[in-house]
Amino acid sequence: MDNATTQRRKGADMAHHSQRTQRNARAIGEAGFDALICGTPSNVLLLSAGYWPIVGTSLAVANSEGKVALVVPEDESELARKTGAAEVFPYKPASLDQLQTVTDAIVPPLTEAASTIGVSGGRIGCDLSDANQPASYISMHLFGSGLAEVINRALPGSNAEDAKRLLSKLRSICTSQEVDRVRQACKVAQGAFEAARRALRPGEFEIAVASLASLPLYQNAHARDQQHLAIMSGPRGASAYGAYAISSDRVMQAGELVMVHCNSNIAGYWTDITRTFCLGKPTDQQKRMYDAISAAREAALQAIRPGVRAADVDKAARQILSDRGFGDQFKHATGHGVGYAAIDHNAQPRLHPKSPDLLEVGMVFNVEPAIYIENAQGMRHCDMVVVTDLGAEVLTPFLSDPQTLILV
Amino acid sequence: MDNATTQRRKGADMAHHSQRTQRNARAIGEAGFDALICGTPSNVLLLSAGYWPIVGTSLAVANSEGKVALVVPEDESELARKTGAAEVFPYKPASLDQLQTVTDAIVPPLTEAASTIGVSGGRIGCDLSDANQPASYISMHLFGSGLAEVINRALPGSNAEDAKRLLSKLRSICTSQEVDRVRQACKVAQGAFEAARRALRPGEFEIAVASLASLPLYQNAHARDQQHLAIMSGPRGASAYGAYAISSDRVMQAGELVMVHCNSNIAGYWTDITRTFCLGKPTDQQKRMYDAISAAREAALQAIRPGVRAADVDKAARQILSDRGFGDQFKHATGHGVGYAAIDHNAQPRLHPKSPDLLEVGMVFNVEPAIYIENAQGMRHCDMVVVTDLGAEVLTPFLSDPQTLILV
Repeated sequence: MDNATTQRRKGADMAHHSQRTQRNARAIGEAGFDALICGTPSNVLLLSAGYWPIVGTSLAVANSEGKVALVVPEDESELARKTGAAEVFPYKPASLDQLQTVTDAIVPPLTEAASTIGVSGGRIGCDLSDANQPASYISMHLFGSGLAEVINRALPGSNAEDAKRLLSKLRSICTSQEVDRVRQACKVAQGAFEAARRALRPGEFEIAVASLASLPLYQNAHARDQQHLAIMSGPRGASAYGAYAISSDRVMQAGELVMVHCNSNIAGYWTDITRTFCLGKPTDQQKRMYDAISAAREAALQAIRPGVRAADVDKAARQILSDRGFGDQFKHATGHGVGYAAIDHNAQPRLHPKSPDLLEVGMVFNVEPAIYIENAQGMRHCDMVVVTDLGAEVLTPFLSDPQTLILV
Repeated sequence: MDNATTQRRKGADMAHHSQRTQRNARAIGEAGFDALICGTPSNVLLLSAGYWPIVGTSLAVANSEGKVALVVPEDESELARKTGAAEVFPYKPASLDQLQTVTDAIVPPLTEAASTIGVSGGRIGCDLSDANQPASYISMHLFGSGLAEVINRALPGSNAEDAKRLLSKLRSICTSQEVDRVRQACKVAQGAFEAARRALRPGEFEIAVASLASLPLYQNAHARDQQHLAIMSGPRGASAYGAYAISSDRVMQAGELVMVHCNSNIAGYWTDITRTFCLGKPTDQQKRMYDAISAAREAALQAIRPGVRAADVDKAARQILSDRGFGDQFKHATGHGVGYAAIDHNAQPRLHPKSPDLLEVGMVFNVEPAIYIENAQGMRHCDMVVVTDLGAEVLTPFLSDPQTLILV
């Protein structure tokens, strides 16, 4: 990068920090907390405005004045400092002189870090309770209920309270730079979908094509190792409404529908994308499925704008699928929050028939109309969108036309 | 598989269940618990003797009579039933009729599952506190402190107590079938190391070779998506004593040392393996490093047998490295428990200078003598071993001779 680019990048980063940290600070103040202390990697990312921990032994402290301090294992300190938004307190989680737990090692630096930004007790919101967490590494330290012990020992007399509601809300609305990261992650995923399109043919194993197609996810220089791509073909697509997508050693057959699902991320900001290819000339039913999903997608996208009920977006897509005879086969909600989450059906906004959520500018979520025909086949088209003043901006404007998904 | 093979496999599975569930049952009784209820995937695997949850919304209940019941999301019920060791209670974590949390959805089936094996209250051990957890999927539900709420609601009047000590001990000793799974995972990793050996050459990106080399990890039919392979070359190897290993877009140079690190798993049973290649004729220092590490490895392996102090195995390896002038450069312990853990320096047995652990038959851990020369280069040779009556069985008997690691 040349100097001017570096300067511009730095300027953009600062603007982002201040946008994210100010938003967090306001919410902390409004909730009456003296500080937030978080330990799950995606919440440390949220509070630090950019540092996504690797092994999970980091804590972020944020107060209502927009100040942030980070306690991080020594070997992640460079990564943590890159964000520039917070003071970094490295600690040694292990040593040859003594056997010690992460809890024992982290208490003294947490006291120091909190004190540096004026936090010494009071009501401390934290991420204690259940949550869905994207994997930050192949193995993660989880504080669990132990976070309350850490806080009580580091800040004696303080009250550690679960701050799940506050954190859910803060995670649901992205700053413009966070949206940019998601946009980049969508772009990287595009390369994987194009690779899948080239490699898919009858006679191949799902798992072999998935391995090949996922290479572009890893070869991007910003990528961490946690990227996901899975292929479910033929009857396996019929049950792809489940909570997970995994490739198998099934051999794909001519004429089958093949679902390619991807969760990519850039620096902890996630996508959730699916395309369904047809291995040959579609049957009449497959044509009707493509048409119905295309129309449902269009209806959902048209319905999205600030102030709209998320339930009404779900209704717009569901109505079309229902009118075309696929109502019972659309077995899940039309979408859910992504960005800070990867695959979390409870992440706001929930585009679900019973959702109380209202759409706001900056919300990043998926739109995933789908048809699952029991024991036969399945089709899903899952896009990433962000709410803007003007409506929905589609972050995945590729392979949208069914004609591009039919491989003849 | 033919019928006889299926029958044999079934017989082996049953033997395994009874070995694992009886061992768990005895430990539950000795600790005075009425039951264990666990939610983190690797502990559900431990209690169920074979079911490794995917998305993390499952709970396992085990009592002191060896009975086990599983509460699992509908779309994992087939996977859970395969183990055959437990009664399976599927539940629906999401529906279109209502927005509900996992906690709300899981309480009724947990009450039913527990009652089926005679558990209705009392002292319930659980995995509440901090722990290191291998990623079971790209995004995981974590119960966190919420597990205590689930237990209190499902079994009113019971006491949810953290059972970390008990669980750590149970996880540290594998049954013969668990060792077989680790052995298979080592075999799969061997394919990846051989692929790395073929692909490594000056001028390549670390990340490109890592992508290629990791294909065999995914193409094995038993594999789930969570497998890990990373490459750290030249000066990056000097700081590879950290808690994580990630490839970069660095271009490897002739004459450099290149560390290839892998954590593979079969069905939730993990490995931790490293080999260090030399891209060309080694310098005198590189030769001395290979010799010292080879000798330290041999000394550690010779020291391993049942009843030995884990600290003495560390000492055997450390003494050799120290004698050869590399004492200060061997910056971490000689090994730690693997198998149920992936990368957890606190997993028993800890081959650490201050470790109180004694080796027992069935303990599965790594032996990883290493030399990290600040700002210059690093070398680590990490094997997987299991303690047998006779001593150490090396589960990674490949690329052990330095000659096979030198690529000229």
